[in-house]
Amino acid sequence: MTRTKAPLTIDPEVLGELLDGRWAAQRRRARALAADPATVPPDTGDLGELREATLSGVKALAASGSTRLALPESRGGRNDHAGYVAGFEETVVASPSLQVKAGVQFGLFGGAIQHLGNAEQHAQWLEPAQSGALLGCFAMTEIGHGSDVASLGTTAVYDPAAEEFVIRTPFPAAAKEYIGNAAAHGRAAIVFAQLVTAGVDHGVHAFFVPIRDESGRPLPGITIEDDGRKGGLLGVDNGRLSFDGVRIPRTHLLNRYGDVAADGTYSSPIDSPGRRFFTMLGTLVQGRVSLDGAAVVASKLGLDIAVRYGLQRRQFTGASDTDEVVLMDYQQHQRRLMPLIAETYANALAHEVLLESFQRVFSGEDDSDEARQVLETQAAGFKATTTWAALDILQECREACGGAGFMSENRLTGLRGDLDVYVTFEGDNTVLLQLVGKRLLQDYSAEFKNIDFGGVARFLGTQAAEHSLYRSGLANVGRTIGELLTPALNEKRIRSGKLQQVLLSSRVDAMVADLAGRLRPAAKMSQAAAAELFNEQQHELVNAARAYIELLKWEALNQAMHTFDDRPEHADEAKTLRRIRDLYGLTLIERNIGWHIMYGRLSMNRARQVGPTINRLCAKLAGNAGELVAAFGYGPEQRRATIAEGIEQQRQDEAREHYRQARARADYPVDEKVLYQQKRQQSRQESSAR
Amino acid sequence: MTRTKAPLTIDPEVLGELLDGRWAAQRRRARALAADPATVPPDTGDLGELREATLSGVKALAASGSTRLALPESRGGRNDHAGYVAGFEETVVASPSLQVKAGVQFGLFGGAIQHLGNAEQHAQWLEPAQSGALLGCFAMTEIGHGSDVASLGTTAVYDPAAEEFVIRTPFPAAAKEYIGNAAAHGRAAIVFAQLVTAGVDHGVHAFFVPIRDESGRPLPGITIEDDGRKGGLLGVDNGRLSFDGVRIPRTHLLNRYGDVAADGTYSSPIDSPGRRFFTMLGTLVQGRVSLDGAAVVASKLGLDIAVRYGLQRRQFTGASDTDEVVLMDYQQHQRRLMPLIAETYANALAHEVLLESFQRVFSGEDDSDEARQVLETQAAGFKATTTWAALDILQECREACGGAGFMSENRLTGLRGDLDVYVTFEGDNTVLLQLVGKRLLQDYSAEFKNIDFGGVARFLGTQAAEHSLYRSGLANVGRTIGELLTPALNEKRIRSGKLQQVLLSSRVDAMVADLAGRLRPAAKMSQAAAAELFNEQQHELVNAARAYIELLKWEALNQAMHTFDDRPEHADEAKTLRRIRDLYGLTLIERNIGWHIMYGRLSMNRARQVGPTINRLCAKLAGNAGELVAAFGYGPEQRRATIAEGIEQQRQDEAREHYRQARARADYPVDEKVLYQQKRQQSRQESSAR
Repeated sequence: MTRTKAPLTIDPEVLGELLDGRWAAQRRRARALAADPATVPPDTGDLGELREATLSGVKALAASGSTRLALPESRGGRNDHAGYVAGFEETVVASPSLQVKAGVQFGLFGGAIQHLGNAEQHAQWLEPAQSGALLGCFAMTEIGHGSDVASLGTTAVYDPAAEEFVIRTPFPAAAKEYIGNAAAHGRAAIVFAQLVTAGVDHGVHAFFVPIRDESGRPLPGITIEDDGRKGGLLGVDNGRLSFDGVRIPRTHLLNRYGDVAADGTYSSPIDSPGRRFFTMLGTLVQGRVSLDGAAVVASKLGLDIAVRYGLQRRQFTGASDTDEVVLMDYQQHQRRLMPLIAETYANALAHEVLLESFQRVFSGEDDSDEARQVLETQAAGFKATTTWAALDILQECREACGGAGFMSENRLTGLRGDLDVYVTFEGDNTVLLQLVGKRLLQDYSAEFKNIDFGGVARFLGTQAAEHSLYRSGLANVGRTIGELLTPALNEKRIRSGKLQQVLLSSRVDAMVADLAGRLRPAAKMSQAAAAELFNEQQHELVNAARAYIELLKWEALNQAMHTFDDRPEHADEAKTLRRIRDLYGLTLIERNIGWHIMYGRLSMNRARQVGPTINRLCAKLAGNAGELVAAFGYGPEQRRATIAEGIEQQRQDEAREHYRQARARADYPVDEKVLYQQKRQQSRQESSAR
Repeated sequence: MTRTKAPLTIDPEVLGELLDGRWAAQRRRARALAADPATVPPDTGDLGELREATLSGVKALAASGSTRLALPESRGGRNDHAGYVAGFEETVVASPSLQVKAGVQFGLFGGAIQHLGNAEQHAQWLEPAQSGALLGCFAMTEIGHGSDVASLGTTAVYDPAAEEFVIRTPFPAAAKEYIGNAAAHGRAAIVFAQLVTAGVDHGVHAFFVPIRDESGRPLPGITIEDDGRKGGLLGVDNGRLSFDGVRIPRTHLLNRYGDVAADGTYSSPIDSPGRRFFTMLGTLVQGRVSLDGAAVVASKLGLDIAVRYGLQRRQFTGASDTDEVVLMDYQQHQRRLMPLIAETYANALAHEVLLESFQRVFSGEDDSDEARQVLETQAAGFKATTTWAALDILQECREACGGAGFMSENRLTGLRGDLDVYVTFEGDNTVLLQLVGKRLLQDYSAEFKNIDFGGVARFLGTQAAEHSLYRSGLANVGRTIGELLTPALNEKRIRSGKLQQVLLSSRVDAMVADLAGRLRPAAKMSQAAAAELFNEQQHELVNAARAYIELLKWEALNQAMHTFDDRPEHADEAKTLRRIRDLYGLTLIERNIGWHIMYGRLSMNRARQVGPTINRLCAKLAGNAGELVAAFGYGPEQRRATIAEGIEQQRQDEAREHYRQARARADYPVDEKVLYQQKRQQSRQESSAR
């Protein structure tokens, strides 16, 4: 069949090195820990058991010391933010529940203390948080408001007489909801509430609020409800928190960006309340960064399992009468899995770019507004597209394994169920893409700097209005398209990287220009009319954002591929990476082939080559499918999926041996079909002889 | 915002009548039963509890008498096959576990006895099966072979001395796997095994095999293993069955299509073993028919929940400074949900067509080969596309409900997890679409009648080679396209039904013709080369099959719409149905817009209208979203989702009332943002005054 003609000779370790990137050492340490039985959840549906097991995993993580990597050197850490995140992402291998619960504890609870608190607060709470001694919640989301954090209803009103804040849930919709660590284990919570002092509402700030006593009972004024069963992440104890006039000392305000003096005077290093709010939220970008990486890890695991099975499983005879065909040799199987492998390579390598941005900003190497905005845009767009991709990938992998894919012991359904909520938490993906789209518009034209109309736009607009623009690089693209779409380029073969880049980037450029043209009249409209106009372009805005993020990912993959340009000793790996890049690029182009034709970027003749070229690339890459997933760096102790470790091959060998022996026996039955054919042939001969 | 301009006045009951179709009464009775607490599973992850609860549901179903509808009148039934299936599908409302476990018991176990057994066997086992007194399994699938039933390894060797069959699992891969009712409750199993007698293997036949004694212990020679936890359907006790020389009486062979006399002589009313095999399997088409309908029911439930929430939930302010926008008013939200509603209408109405086919064949009204083949093709194609659609729909609904969508109490994740396996059981969807594609080819040209090369094709080919062709209607299409693609049609507006039909059908026609042209050389090739050629077209074959099935669904929707042509009293319902048809049609066209342009079917100008027209249709239909889902006919007792019944509205009302009262108080805090703006304005005025 189509696959096995002369696959390339590639070394999975060489590709693995590229994929694991700059923080490979942390990744490998974390993978080893994730294979430790102490971090692996039990096979049960019992919430209590799963939650306790996940808590043990959190403690094992803390005991490993990895949770301190991101602390400043003054607190015994290594200021290694990306290294911490890279390792943390790999805890998905143990279980996504562990990743999320640990993320709540160390990234959100600990992270908020670190990034929003002062030195005294660090001394008091940061060490216990990062050691796992003080379990905490991150109480931002309310039932009534998720992505729209500015509209939270919880209040923290300062009482100068007592020098205390009074935390209150003023109505049921303001209850903190889906809060991890709340239902069972949290002793404290970072509560986001509207800070009110001296008659002024200063907007959302973060407060350290104890919620349970040493015996685990809720403290007075605090109501905790259990969210119960969920579609996944059963090891995380999500719950609902309400506050009925709970008093905390003034010094429990995490006051890096806003403080209240004893007499109630408010002060902040940032004058503008809007900018202050977004700066505070910006410190929490780590969550999105790590979800992007976690989704890559889950995608790798799923593909590793499905490909290993697909390389052994046989079904239906084809080229031979007796030997059944290996699934991976079927074209449709290749079309289902190989583009997903290419996408996972792109997502992994783009994630490396994101980690670099993250490290630059958080280490202090470059924490300019511009660098922060690039980071936030990348994090929003990558998180949205990679988490969606992970769900699609895990589902395709599960289906590619048939009924076996549905068994919990093969992990695919569990991973998918757990990852499901990644697409709506830490920023709903649809909202995040609108944020990206909004910034594209602002970068395209100064007139959109002050864009402030319509739904999400109002929310998204606030920050950029006062910031200098980040550089999406669109302006450059705009200039070069004219030169690039020359007859010379038009003659390039469809696998030309230059052609892919021009197609992908010129699409972004045209979409943004079109959008800008259609939205321009809004500036002179009433608020209601402008909102309506904006809403009519929402779908296109989301599409443009997606196109831009895909371009960034393609560029990351392309760049990584070119690092092999001067490594002639790895020619086959380089060739493989080129196939991966082309498959990813052409898959993106095929998905919007109608656009590329309608806008005159691709002739119909060229467009017709795309599908067959994808088929050929899939077949070629399928010849190395085993090495491509081996490069992900997981072993049986990380995969933990029965079907991925040769059991299918063993069963086939047993069956083949059985038939071999059976055929040798004298009493081996004749197939009725053979007799039937003989009989028909005979009767035909007789009738023609007559 | 975009939605609320003058929605139409439509009566959900009128649309509901159309959707519920000919077997509305059975549907409604089943919905009432599915709201009965006796059929509703408990909120737990405990397998034992869930399995017992599901068993109770099965017994409640039997007690309701509905499980006898499909029995012949001679056995106290009503020969009402479609009515039975229509009601049975609605058990998804109680839980998909119940639907599947009941499907195993009554549809597969009971159905096999009914369709493959003789009168004596009916007398002995059919009544106890349909009353739920005799719990049984349907043991077809083996670990080593799922969709390729002909290759099963289990043997039933006749021993004339004892007048018994000896059932054996000759190697581990031949163990019966994922068998419902096996792990806990089944007392007997219909076992599919290669029948061997007098030295000849007559292929797969079905045998009645007791597997447990009265106390529930496995009988001698029978090994039962529990499949444990799965990605869903936790109420179904799937397990693995192996047979070690288990002896059953000769009369336990279900002998309608093949019998063995006491002396071991084999006889069958169907000479050809291939045709006999497919005729036997054909009697089991009911499973696919009911999965198609069950997937429609699940889609309806998901959309009902998500739309009700989307009509109440507000997020971000837009046209007003204070009032947040209802989710359903956002264009992107409309684009996410409205095409799925249109698709669900199409799937529901196409399912009615399938039920009509099913009833014609199974009632005996027309059980010609041709009618059977139309039924089998429809069942395969509809089941594949509708179950995939259900997964996408449930996922989109869950995401549209944000974090609340992830809570089990809102049902969306549970429904999705349960439905997941529908896409690979009762025929893997990818295999089913190849079956459809294969028949399209055979219908296109006589030279493909004997197609027998390459992978799945070999399996799929066997039957058609000896049957007369079914009529896909493709030949007609081929003739009319030339006439239809005239300038006159080209001037029709993009919402013309004729234009949609021509685009959709001419695409099928061209794809099949292209495929046929590319595959033609295979006839003269070696087996290996032909297999390779066939494999290179597998992706296109699947795409062509999908295009054909989508056309059939569009036609079902179009036809249903036209039943309102002469009902002027329901003009608004008719207009709504036209919008639904256009949205469905244009969505299908947009998905392959590149193809329609490349093949010259749509000019680029016309193609550019498609997207904006879809946006407008979504906005218009969103104005009636509430009525569109109300037409599905479910109440709170069927939905059982917390967020679908007004709790969100209540919380918003409370919040609004809180703010209203708070603003009236003297100490209501001023927003710092307002002060900041005033201060900036003031300083600008001062600096300009200087």
